[in-house]
Amino acid sequence: MSKLRLGVFASGGGTNLQAIIGGCERGDIAADVAVAFSDKPEAGALDRARRHGIAAVHVPVPKTGTDGWLEADRQITAVLQEHEVGLVCLAGYMRKIGPALLEAFRGRIMNIHPALLPAFPGVHVQALQLEYGVKVAGCTVHFADEEFDRGPIIIQAAVPVREDDTAESLAARILEKEHIIYARAIQWFAQGRLRLEGRIVRIEGVTSAAIL
Amino acid sequence: MSKLRLGVFASGGGTNLQAIIGGCERGDIAADVAVAFSDKPEAGALDRARRHGIAAVHVPVPKTGTDGWLEADRQITAVLQEHEVGLVCLAGYMRKIGPALLEAFRGRIMNIHPALLPAFPGVHVQALQLEYGVKVAGCTVHFADEEFDRGPIIIQAAVPVREDDTAESLAARILEKEHIIYARAIQWFAQGRLRLEGRIVRIEGVTSAAIL
Repeated sequence: MSKLRLGVFASGGGTNLQAIIGGCERGDIAADVAVAFSDKPEAGALDRARRHGIAAVHVPVPKTGTDGWLEADRQITAVLQEHEVGLVCLAGYMRKIGPALLEAFRGRIMNIHPALLPAFPGVHVQALQLEYGVKVAGCTVHFADEEFDRGPIIIQAAVPVREDDTAESLAARILEKEHIIYARAIQWFAQGRLRLEGRIVRIEGVTSAAIL
Repeated sequence: MSKLRLGVFASGGGTNLQAIIGGCERGDIAADVAVAFSDKPEAGALDRARRHGIAAVHVPVPKTGTDGWLEADRQITAVLQEHEVGLVCLAGYMRKIGPALLEAFRGRIMNIHPALLPAFPGVHVQALQLEYGVKVAGCTVHFADEEFDRGPIIIQAAVPVREDDTAESLAARILEKEHIIYARAIQWFAQGRLRLEGRIVRIEGVTSAAIL
């Protein structure tokens, strides 16, 4: 059986991409990053990929819902197929994914979100959690579907909010756990242990997918 | 300084009331339960109170928003004042609290909720968390205001969802943590360590109010 090939999407610095690459290189994740994609030409994620000899692809993504957006969606999907990608990992990717990608990779797209979904969907949620005054924050890896931050949850980690936290210190504490849970979710997928039952993700041989 | 006197509201069996009574008796909570109140004459909570020699009061509470409801609200408030209650603890109380109570006890009403607010407000949330497929569940103690399940959060505990959980097994695991966090929140209040900063609850001498 050939190794699972990952396509990692990022709009920013790519720290989650870096963690995934590290997990693959160390053998914690039985997969290879085949291609990194960004909608932003200057994304640090693309540089990180290149430094590891991984194909780094930039496609400009026009306004969501336009013909240009649909065309970019088809282009991205073709790139993933050329690279024989088996799992798409959204890792700080800030754009809505399109219908071609969803159709071609149904059930094979994961996303990481820096909050305990369904609480705090959307963006800037580390600061929002602090402003709301939660005492337990966290992060979530889930299968992605048409809507943002709503698909079936694979794994979650709880993170304590400290009384002296800033948005930055809380975000850093959450990010540490993001790396851990994303690696674990991808490894479970690579091992064929994930199964959907309605919107519940069942994980073979695992007692709990909660990291406390 | 005289000891803090608690008024505990429950609509059901009163396991949280029991835990609070136990905490007071053991000295973990520097307070006494002065009165237990229920809208249901048959609530197990009233029996539990009586067995501990605590005043057990039942007032029927008519439909929310009616004149009868407002009258019951005034009656309940008077009962609490007669018993010189310093803190109202809602503990499985299923009715909306009224304006007289809110006015007389502003900033001195706590509620316990079996989910990590702001996720899963409302009722039957242990089953709802399971049906949604979260992997981290939990519970919250918060100050109560006009709206259900929205006031400033004092303390939260995260609880792992197990892959073989039923609504009952998850509810039992959450309930254990409810007892722990409610006792701690009341003790902090009794010690005068809670302070509101906007909607953030600051806790003197505490690093984090997250229980993982």
